[in-house]
Amino acid sequence: MIQANDPKLRSWIDIPADSDFPIQNIPFGIFSHDGRTKRAASRIGDYVIDLSALAELGYFDNLQIPDLSVFYNDTLNDFIRLGKETTRQVRNRLAELFAADNPTLREQTEHKEQVLFDARRVYMHMPVEVGDYTDFYSSLEHATNVGKMFRPDNPLLPNWKHLPVGYHGRSSSIVVSGHPVIRPKGQIMPAGADKPIFSATQRLDFELEVAFIVGKDTQMGDSISTAQAEDYIFGLVLFNDWSARDIQQWEYVPLGPFLGKNFASTISPWIVTLDALEPFRVESPKQDPEVLDYLKFEGKKSFDIHLEVYIQPKDAEASLVCRSNFKYMYWNMSQQLAHHTVNGCPMRVGDMCASGTISGPTPDSFGSMLELSWGGKNAVKLQGGIERKFIEDYDTVIMKGYAQGEGYRVGFGECVGQVLPAKL
Amino acid sequence: MIQANDPKLRSWIDIPADSDFPIQNIPFGIFSHDGRTKRAASRIGDYVIDLSALAELGYFDNLQIPDLSVFYNDTLNDFIRLGKETTRQVRNRLAELFAADNPTLREQTEHKEQVLFDARRVYMHMPVEVGDYTDFYSSLEHATNVGKMFRPDNPLLPNWKHLPVGYHGRSSSIVVSGHPVIRPKGQIMPAGADKPIFSATQRLDFELEVAFIVGKDTQMGDSISTAQAEDYIFGLVLFNDWSARDIQQWEYVPLGPFLGKNFASTISPWIVTLDALEPFRVESPKQDPEVLDYLKFEGKKSFDIHLEVYIQPKDAEASLVCRSNFKYMYWNMSQQLAHHTVNGCPMRVGDMCASGTISGPTPDSFGSMLELSWGGKNAVKLQGGIERKFIEDYDTVIMKGYAQGEGYRVGFGECVGQVLPAKL
Repeated sequence: MIQANDPKLRSWIDIPADSDFPIQNIPFGIFSHDGRTKRAASRIGDYVIDLSALAELGYFDNLQIPDLSVFYNDTLNDFIRLGKETTRQVRNRLAELFAADNPTLREQTEHKEQVLFDARRVYMHMPVEVGDYTDFYSSLEHATNVGKMFRPDNPLLPNWKHLPVGYHGRSSSIVVSGHPVIRPKGQIMPAGADKPIFSATQRLDFELEVAFIVGKDTQMGDSISTAQAEDYIFGLVLFNDWSARDIQQWEYVPLGPFLGKNFASTISPWIVTLDALEPFRVESPKQDPEVLDYLKFEGKKSFDIHLEVYIQPKDAEASLVCRSNFKYMYWNMSQQLAHHTVNGCPMRVGDMCASGTISGPTPDSFGSMLELSWGGKNAVKLQGGIERKFIEDYDTVIMKGYAQGEGYRVGFGECVGQVLPAKL
Repeated sequence: MIQANDPKLRSWIDIPADSDFPIQNIPFGIFSHDGRTKRAASRIGDYVIDLSALAELGYFDNLQIPDLSVFYNDTLNDFIRLGKETTRQVRNRLAELFAADNPTLREQTEHKEQVLFDARRVYMHMPVEVGDYTDFYSSLEHATNVGKMFRPDNPLLPNWKHLPVGYHGRSSSIVVSGHPVIRPKGQIMPAGADKPIFSATQRLDFELEVAFIVGKDTQMGDSISTAQAEDYIFGLVLFNDWSARDIQQWEYVPLGPFLGKNFASTISPWIVTLDALEPFRVESPKQDPEVLDYLKFEGKKSFDIHLEVYIQPKDAEASLVCRSNFKYMYWNMSQQLAHHTVNGCPMRVGDMCASGTISGPTPDSFGSMLELSWGGKNAVKLQGGIERKFIEDYDTVIMKGYAQGEGYRVGFGECVGQVLPAKL
């Protein structure tokens, strides 16, 4: 069978050279159009592929999928639960059907009308039902930057290089790209005041992250080793961990971030499979001091994914404010998952684990306004003479990400959210 | 219609005087028996009531329940989603059917065989699917005790009396009473060491808590006022927030508890409705300093619920180690829910919010071994000359709770978990 990852593969669909969705990607998502029900989808170039239509037309008949209803569900959880052997077959079958020299679907005009939809004319929905969502804090540069601001005398805490620090976030407020974000309100302790005030956040921020989606259940008491971890990761999305810095700063000691984070998180709609990212493996940063045995790993467990953040004020152009890379993470996903389950904490298909803000070594690679404006001290310059220290009402934050292959790129599309004024 | 809360009501079922489940309780849960599928249930005295059987036999026909399938589901989420007006009708109808002078069901021997099951011969399951689980930290005594141990120079942090501190916990590891708890392992920093070790926890603890279950969805951006909050609370369960103190202490700064908590939480199987607890309202503790407007409330928002914790070592008697009360909470549930949603964080039916450890003012009312043994300094004496500083393998921790009425009590049954050795 054709392998979707073959870099020489080309499709009979016309795909722009800078498209995030060449035949080497074949991500998975949930879409709807014309008010019809949600269904499983993939994407190629500017087209959304209706997987339920392909299944109905018999194009998956040779794949031994025990229950085709997985393509008609509201979420991909049951599809993912089929296991990587099966979902990988679906991805390779899609590459085969769309390969330039394969007439099977190409010559079926009526079938193509049932299967292919203009990506600009459909709605994308949450690709999975998220059981639990965990946010890590795995960028050394981010942890150091934030530490310098929040705890000048103690920037990097003693545990940071021994374990991938993480905490639980809120599943109910994870929304898909395009969903508006309402400015949160809450308690803030003004500098020098002796009691808190109630206010809309004055320091609304984004955090540039990448999240992985768990692809396999574990039982309570089970631990996943770093060697096994990638079997439990279905794929990745871009993740904007919206943060209200003033609310967070007042509330977070001693039990961590809560209302400063749980009002909204935005993800990109397409889950790019770990399979599609296989050609983009790179070495992880060297870890010193040496980590405990359960966090050691072999081989390349990091991924070279270019990341960008743009801010687009109302009626203005979008300005690039950050250029970072997923490979900067000090702790890789396999280590995160091994750590998360070392105590026996159970994982379920659809659980989401975000990386934490991905900042690089240079100031233009910082993954949050908190760092870019250095705690609100320095304005970040946008096009047209506009400046920002934090995110203002009606600003749209756009995240993009892609891995660059030779002659193609495997991308995530966009992770977009516009901020609306607080409900006061 | 008969009101279940009528203190004079008696049942044709023989109910022991010290039963947690008189006709004034009528809690809701999910049960199975003889390997059959899970179904919705209630409880009276020593009997489990099969609500799906009652529905099938037509006993709910007069209640305008739009879809009787809610009684055949694996969880109560859809039942709760019917709304309090409907679930209250079901509870009152059950009180009516089981009232001493009502022959409707009493005289139907065959029906009774289909509806009533010996509570010792059925399995109880998770009553709800928990979307998100939040743990508060709302006992002043507990926060002060723990603060003294973890931060001797700074026991009660500046934000504590201004807001109900909370954090997100793990939904996937919430289990129902009776489920074993495997001792977790992880990173521990021994006192005086310069690097962490890997070990099974040496400081396994319980935390005595009460959790409420959200009964109504909100939309992102919505806030619930303290006046509205109880409309959004379906009912309560006992909650054991198992904790590994050594893992927690090393990991929890700066983002809060993670692996020290997320390996297991145990709940009691019966959701006692807020309606059933109505007669047991009491004033909340006076709050000083004054709280911000959105946290102010009117009326009695606390509940007088006696709480007990027992430790039963293997082959030994159970010993009472703690006697506390839910009314000690500095922050009440209405305040917790108002705070949780003040930033627009969306709530979903089935979400669970635990109180945090409920410690009282006296040393015998401390709700965790951490406090009872004062950080492992003083052994807690059990029956038979046994001593404990923390929880040992094969120990069973039993929590009980009840509100005392005149001649009856509304109780929670038991919240039980036995600790099994670590998987090393």
